[in-house]
Amino acid sequence: MKFEYYNPTHLIFGAGTLARLGEVTSAYGKKAMIVTGGGSVKRSGAFDRAVASLSAAGVSFVECDGVEPNPRLSSVARGGEIARTEGCDVVIALGGGSVMDAAKVMAAAVYYEGDLWEMFPHGQANRRLPERALPVITVPTLAATGSEMNSGAVITDEKTTIKSFVGAKCLYPKAAIVDPELTLSVPKDQTAYGVCDLITHVTESYFNGVDGTPMQDRFAESVIATAIEWGPKAVADGSNLEARAQVQWASVVALNGWVQTGCMSPFPVHMIEHTISALHDIAHGAGLAIVNPAWMRFAAKSRPARFAQFAHRIFGIELKSEEDMEAALQGIDRFEEFLRSIGCPTRLSECGIGDELLNRYAEDTLLVAGNAFGQLAGRPMMTQADIVEVLRAAV
Amino acid sequence: MKFEYYNPTHLIFGAGTLARLGEVTSAYGKKAMIVTGGGSVKRSGAFDRAVASLSAAGVSFVECDGVEPNPRLSSVARGGEIARTEGCDVVIALGGGSVMDAAKVMAAAVYYEGDLWEMFPHGQANRRLPERALPVITVPTLAATGSEMNSGAVITDEKTTIKSFVGAKCLYPKAAIVDPELTLSVPKDQTAYGVCDLITHVTESYFNGVDGTPMQDRFAESVIATAIEWGPKAVADGSNLEARAQVQWASVVALNGWVQTGCMSPFPVHMIEHTISALHDIAHGAGLAIVNPAWMRFAAKSRPARFAQFAHRIFGIELKSEEDMEAALQGIDRFEEFLRSIGCPTRLSECGIGDELLNRYAEDTLLVAGNAFGQLAGRPMMTQADIVEVLRAAV
Repeated sequence: MKFEYYNPTHLIFGAGTLARLGEVTSAYGKKAMIVTGGGSVKRSGAFDRAVASLSAAGVSFVECDGVEPNPRLSSVARGGEIARTEGCDVVIALGGGSVMDAAKVMAAAVYYEGDLWEMFPHGQANRRLPERALPVITVPTLAATGSEMNSGAVITDEKTTIKSFVGAKCLYPKAAIVDPELTLSVPKDQTAYGVCDLITHVTESYFNGVDGTPMQDRFAESVIATAIEWGPKAVADGSNLEARAQVQWASVVALNGWVQTGCMSPFPVHMIEHTISALHDIAHGAGLAIVNPAWMRFAAKSRPARFAQFAHRIFGIELKSEEDMEAALQGIDRFEEFLRSIGCPTRLSECGIGDELLNRYAEDTLLVAGNAFGQLAGRPMMTQADIVEVLRAAV
Repeated sequence: MKFEYYNPTHLIFGAGTLARLGEVTSAYGKKAMIVTGGGSVKRSGAFDRAVASLSAAGVSFVECDGVEPNPRLSSVARGGEIARTEGCDVVIALGGGSVMDAAKVMAAAVYYEGDLWEMFPHGQANRRLPERALPVITVPTLAATGSEMNSGAVITDEKTTIKSFVGAKCLYPKAAIVDPELTLSVPKDQTAYGVCDLITHVTESYFNGVDGTPMQDRFAESVIATAIEWGPKAVADGSNLEARAQVQWASVVALNGWVQTGCMSPFPVHMIEHTISALHDIAHGAGLAIVNPAWMRFAAKSRPARFAQFAHRIFGIELKSEEDMEAALQGIDRFEEFLRSIGCPTRLSECGIGDELLNRYAEDTLLVAGNAFGQLAGRPMMTQADIVEVLRAAV
């Protein structure tokens, strides 16, 4: 193991902590831009409570609303322009992963010269990471992406329908106010997709990370076990604040670096899914529920021991040998059953998607994340044909 | 769950990372004070390599050597004076927990007006936490205390032989360079004590934290399982770099806040142990190996379910019921056997300590950490008689 870890985000977790937004924000300036999505935070009253807290702390604000799911580069540019022309000191993201991702890049866009898309690896040759950003405060309204406490963002270039990722030190939120009360109104399906999303964040590093990270293995298993225990309770009864809190805490640690550090893991399942949700109106978490089990069955063939460990430690399946392939596949079946039990789709056809574009998804995946040999990083490395094979099994 | 988490320390982990000391330090200044202990870093060559790295980066240094195990307030004052009069920009702690703890408080002492002991809770009435410190870079040579990546320090006032704790935001190291190669020369006994120390850091919060933190439970179990798997390998063959790395990584996460956050746990076993190692020449980790199992048997009586969970999840002991006291005690026995198997003492008498001062230890514990009703915080709360009872079982 050889790695670095750094995460300076100040996490404030717990029911009712939204009331601290003003106090926290006022440490970074007098004028905020509040970034929101499609309006759910206004319907739920969260926006009004946020504004009341800001007012009480003497912080004025402007809005940047209407950030769409799978946020677009043009929305990010619009937000950057608002923050710049309005002279905002700080950016508040009040919403789900899309809003938080967009807000981070808006905060960087304020200082970024030239084409914003050059932050993203798609423009590899002339890639320029952002080096400076306005302070960002995240207030997630959904337990899913973990974006509230990390330095990453996923944005779609609508001109090319390419979805891509940027990660940079300046994108770490200064503070994350994680108030599980804000997730009480999340509908069943979105709750389930969030559970799937957070689990997938840790299965990626569990199955694709380097060898020799036993602590990280156990941390990943901790997140999965907690999500499997509490996720169904949050889905069954959205008003169960305890379940909401446990799921949201799991979603924070699933992608704040605690599990992944030192694993040096690529995220092949995410890479493949991004190409699907860039082309279809499908929630990221739902897409992951479709791609992940299919990918796991593909990957288990080359690494049965790792999948057997997953089957044993997560589902208590007894192993006949370290490389027990039957147990490995049973574990994947159990995992897929779990996803179905909370209401996730596990086949493309359930989302009205056919097999017409399988090659396109695979091509796009490699366009964004492929290496010089046309392979997608992961264990195992995947060719275009491999990606098509995985997706065909998920039709 | 309602809590805050913040840890800005930049962790650089891996064999050979000592070579980066100069580069990392140069970001904080041109002149460093290097704090060391009894000379082992000079014998091992680590000091020379540290100095070579600093020189290559154009960083000059002065020394503050001779920090004793269970570091004394007078040593801290001496270090603060050196750093101040020499005009140092940054403090480097090259050593074990004692050196790192002392270095942190020295860095704060540079700016602290008046009596340093007022940082510590012993002087509760007039306690003043430090608010400013020189940047600190930790380079641990022992896998044990976790001090390299947290904001705490334990110091002994030699006048009163009281050992006490300070934690403050300004004491977070800027960077922790954790190079397992530096632990290759640690003798068997110190290696074992380190394993015991790191496990005790997480058993404290596991057994004394608030209810309703299932993720933190599993994280604690992850640390314990990793230490039980890799600790004996590091003890058996000190040159096993892989084992050294796994144990050291476990020691970092055992007390950098990842496991304890939200548990709001007191540390009763540490509080009791501190009074023993303040009065006797006994390693902190050895003292913990003596106190912890005895404390566990005491605490299990009032909370069998929690100890049964420990027995089941760590040692695979089957439970007849959720509150299976027999299984709970078996788990504690197995834990004590583990400590013995790696060479830790589990009775005071093994360290040449009798039963003469049991009341004194209990009194001192309550003096430092007791509440207004003369009780030590924990689950359960402990009176002076309870502490004596625990210690009597450990004679």
